[in-house]
Amino acid sequence: MAIKFAERTNNMEGSAIRELLKLTQKPEVISFAGGMPAPELFPVDAMIDVSKKVLEENGRVAMQYTTTEGYAPLREHLAKRMNDNLQTNVVADDLLITNGSQQCLDFIGKAFLDKDDIVLCESPSYLGAINAFNAYQPKFIDVPTDENGMIMEELEKILEENDRVKFIYVIPDFQNPSGRTWPLERRKKFMEIINKYEIPVAEDNPYGELRYEGEYLPSLKSMDTKGLVMFLGTLSKVLSPGYRIGWVAAAPEILAKFNVIKQAADLQASTISQMEMAKFFDDYDVDAHIAKLREVYGHRRTVMLDAMKKYFPEGVTYTYPNGGLFTWVILPEGIDATVLQKEKALPNNVAFVPGEPFFPNGGHVNTFRMNYSNMPDDKIEEGIRLLGLSIKEAIDEL
Amino acid sequence: MAIKFAERTNNMEGSAIRELLKLTQKPEVISFAGGMPAPELFPVDAMIDVSKKVLEENGRVAMQYTTTEGYAPLREHLAKRMNDNLQTNVVADDLLITNGSQQCLDFIGKAFLDKDDIVLCESPSYLGAINAFNAYQPKFIDVPTDENGMIMEELEKILEENDRVKFIYVIPDFQNPSGRTWPLERRKKFMEIINKYEIPVAEDNPYGELRYEGEYLPSLKSMDTKGLVMFLGTLSKVLSPGYRIGWVAAAPEILAKFNVIKQAADLQASTISQMEMAKFFDDYDVDAHIAKLREVYGHRRTVMLDAMKKYFPEGVTYTYPNGGLFTWVILPEGIDATVLQKEKALPNNVAFVPGEPFFPNGGHVNTFRMNYSNMPDDKIEEGIRLLGLSIKEAIDEL
Repeated sequence: MAIKFAERTNNMEGSAIRELLKLTQKPEVISFAGGMPAPELFPVDAMIDVSKKVLEENGRVAMQYTTTEGYAPLREHLAKRMNDNLQTNVVADDLLITNGSQQCLDFIGKAFLDKDDIVLCESPSYLGAINAFNAYQPKFIDVPTDENGMIMEELEKILEENDRVKFIYVIPDFQNPSGRTWPLERRKKFMEIINKYEIPVAEDNPYGELRYEGEYLPSLKSMDTKGLVMFLGTLSKVLSPGYRIGWVAAAPEILAKFNVIKQAADLQASTISQMEMAKFFDDYDVDAHIAKLREVYGHRRTVMLDAMKKYFPEGVTYTYPNGGLFTWVILPEGIDATVLQKEKALPNNVAFVPGEPFFPNGGHVNTFRMNYSNMPDDKIEEGIRLLGLSIKEAIDEL
Repeated sequence: MAIKFAERTNNMEGSAIRELLKLTQKPEVISFAGGMPAPELFPVDAMIDVSKKVLEENGRVAMQYTTTEGYAPLREHLAKRMNDNLQTNVVADDLLITNGSQQCLDFIGKAFLDKDDIVLCESPSYLGAINAFNAYQPKFIDVPTDENGMIMEELEKILEENDRVKFIYVIPDFQNPSGRTWPLERRKKFMEIINKYEIPVAEDNPYGELRYEGEYLPSLKSMDTKGLVMFLGTLSKVLSPGYRIGWVAAAPEILAKFNVIKQAADLQASTISQMEMAKFFDDYDVDAHIAKLREVYGHRRTVMLDAMKKYFPEGVTYTYPNGGLFTWVILPEGIDATVLQKEKALPNNVAFVPGEPFFPNGGHVNTFRMNYSNMPDDKIEEGIRLLGLSIKEAIDEL
């Protein structure tokens, strides 16, 4: 067979995480690899109630096509929530509903990227975003970071030297994979820079409501005076990923492009999922639900970090996340996390995600990402103990 | 603001249908414009039962992430149904679940099309497909058709003369928009030609189960010996569009690309929607449900065609569909259906979709598409009467 695919498919790789997750589904594996919410915290009973109500009250509407921009009452809830929690000032019509925020990453690539255009992102960055943008054949420059996120002097230098930068992709709150959060001063400086260069920004905020300590910080979107910031939200981490409901809030000129792209991509998000989520917001206390998540995940974060302190050998460092789902581990130079995983951790039935795929231009093989939201305390403790042994072995072999 | 979008966005237009649907949502409008199933036939009670069962029995799985390829029990049901009804020989692992079949149209464009590659399609063709492919900047050649679908001599001529044809997009059963079906002999000839040229084919089959008279014909996929046919199916027309569940069945080499594309596009289809659909297949008689649709839609088809015979003036022709949701009207030369709609039909509170957007290279302004699935008998009769008056006026003004 002589099938000829598009040139862009040469760039396409399956997500290392998704492939790895298949390996880690054996019940004996303690997996810190995914980014999955804890299923025992899903509001299953509420959803039984909500889905019955939606179908009984409005089944013929729920099962029918709806508009591309999405179900208006859900967009109203989400806009209000953003304004209450993130200091934004958006209305329902500023939002488009997407299949999780992942879908909007694809839309951003599609709307902005010609081949060889440049995308800026944090170093490291979310690999699902890198994969989504890659389909449109850009070049990436990953901006150096420190413990407070993207370094603004480095960003400005890159913008001065490159005129094909189409947008900047950032996760200022509890970043995936690093767990880092940008302080207020850095956010302000960032907005100054992007206003000066008039560069669109994708602000991805899947974990923002999952803060375990400290003050909430204003979103970049709330500081956006020029309509440059596209805010990506999702219900995947705070309610359920299985319903595939995310959204983007953006300036009208950009949102109009996303609307046309959404039409061609899959017409609309699920009508019934949108109506069920809106009904959940109507009838249940979302804040109380999220408070519970914060309590459990914050505790697990502490358990993991305490165990790392206890079991990880000297020379290994890791971030201290104030929220979100991840911490980021840096091994001594010379240890390859992919090899560590394959030869030591998986045989010990422990899994994580090696860090290299989070760097769009590769390298940094001595890093990995750890998720703490999806394992109970005792498994976290035991997994970190086993992982500590694996790392020790690897260090001894250096 | 100096936002610079990608070149491809110049090609992007909102679907004429989706924009039109907004105009036609006033209750007084008799709309033949959409392609919507009849909401009074949705199995709402069954879905209340099914969604309760899925959440009660398996809520934590239903609300969690699942695999990109989709929920295995649903893929098994769909594969079996294809084999039973379409004479194919596929297994669950040949299928990937998508958000309606629209999403796979986007994936096909993404997987195959470099800028200026050629897509072949029927003339006219489904405008949602044209829009989806357009994002990847191809050229289209629409192959001439007659009352039996694509004309094979014309197809072969085009393939001889063009070496950048990447795939052929066809709807052999009850085509959207024309309502035409390819007879068996033409299907065989088509497969001979595509086997000779080794050209991939997207066989879009949203309406295949909605046959109102005559024998079911084998799908192109069932005749595919070289793994060239990508079969696109959907539950939108036979169960519910609101759940956004479609699928593609394709050769492993192609399916692997779609899997990677799906990961980057939105990770996966809704877990809970997939489980609910699988449970519906488990617990309910899908065949009996579809038999009911056939009865109602087949009757409406007859009501519409009888009314057209009665009320449409001489010189207007239309197709006789054996199934599906649409008939295609050709007006006398010199009448522009867009003008007819705006100046005569909408003021009479009747709506349809003008035909030009169904031709990727434009023209054919004297055509339009009519849907008969979504209106009761009396409204069909009255709508066609009013439309007949509108057309008469337009002819008189010629």
